[in-house]
Amino acid sequence: MPAPASEALVVLAARLLAACRRHGLTLAAAESCTGGLIGHVLTEVPGASDVFVGGIVSYGDGAKVRLLAVAASEIARHGAVSEQVALAMADGARERLRADLAVSVTGIAGPSGGAPGKPVGLTFVAVADARGHDVQRHVWSGDRSANKRASAGAALSLALERLEASGS
Amino acid sequence: MPAPASEALVVLAARLLAACRRHGLTLAAAESCTGGLIGHVLTEVPGASDVFVGGIVSYGDGAKVRLLAVAASEIARHGAVSEQVALAMADGARERLRADLAVSVTGIAGPSGGAPGKPVGLTFVAVADARGHDVQRHVWSGDRSANKRASAGAALSLALERLEASGS
Repeated sequence: MPAPASEALVVLAARLLAACRRHGLTLAAAESCTGGLIGHVLTEVPGASDVFVGGIVSYGDGAKVRLLAVAASEIARHGAVSEQVALAMADGARERLRADLAVSVTGIAGPSGGAPGKPVGLTFVAVADARGHDVQRHVWSGDRSANKRASAGAALSLALERLEASGS
Repeated sequence: MPAPASEALVVLAARLLAACRRHGLTLAAAESCTGGLIGHVLTEVPGASDVFVGGIVSYGDGAKVRLLAVAASEIARHGAVSEQVALAMADGARERLRADLAVSVTGIAGPSGGAPGKPVGLTFVAVADARGHDVQRHVWSGDRSANKRASAGAALSLALERLEASGS
């Protein structure tokens, strides 16, 4: 499946914002490899500010620890690109930004950065709310820009599915 | 002057990253109305991670205070879209992300959000480093998306000019 175009991401972002609004929830984002793309597409939608409170782009490991309260021991044990760190980033964004719902992404966009067992394109997306978490593992096969768009789309979709599963 | 296209912003981002690399400086971003666009275009450039440590998207005023240590009294006195808050955001990003150089943007992307003396399109961009600050005021006249791109371009250019003025 090709990575979504920017325009498709904005459509998805508008759907997520509308679903949050219906549920009376605020939204935050914790982004590593997407670098701010999720916040960018959310804020392309007029009126986003009544739902989207902000985001943290934790590109380096130090930023994950200091700004999102991810445990350095978790990064050391599982690696920055792991299910555990994706979940901790979503929890950290909810807490630090005082949002009801938070999405997170950590991955290897490429072209470099791969390692044994952690190929280029490996990405974890997560969502956290007051009831708990969801997390997904993906391995994208596009270039850096396409992998970022695929990751942003997966994170927005995961949050939307979680809201829709809870009834709207 | 029309707002830069996304591709032009990535070219500008690559120039800023190269200039930071030449000066041995790390880079952070504090974004309000751009919503993550600056981080997004910086991380479109392969190898950005050795310079760009991360960013804070402080879309709401609460996020500006909690995550960037902007004084609530400054926001109350001057408004969130002001020279003073742009400078405080850049300082906060440098400190919280432990970066050598930080850029910031605060503005009214539109279509709503204007007020007497603060028209839609009003935007302040700032840059902070160990030696001090620069700040610029702009009033963009495009739509929401174009105003975001114009703001991101102005912030990246301001940082690049500051580095080039200091000699490379």
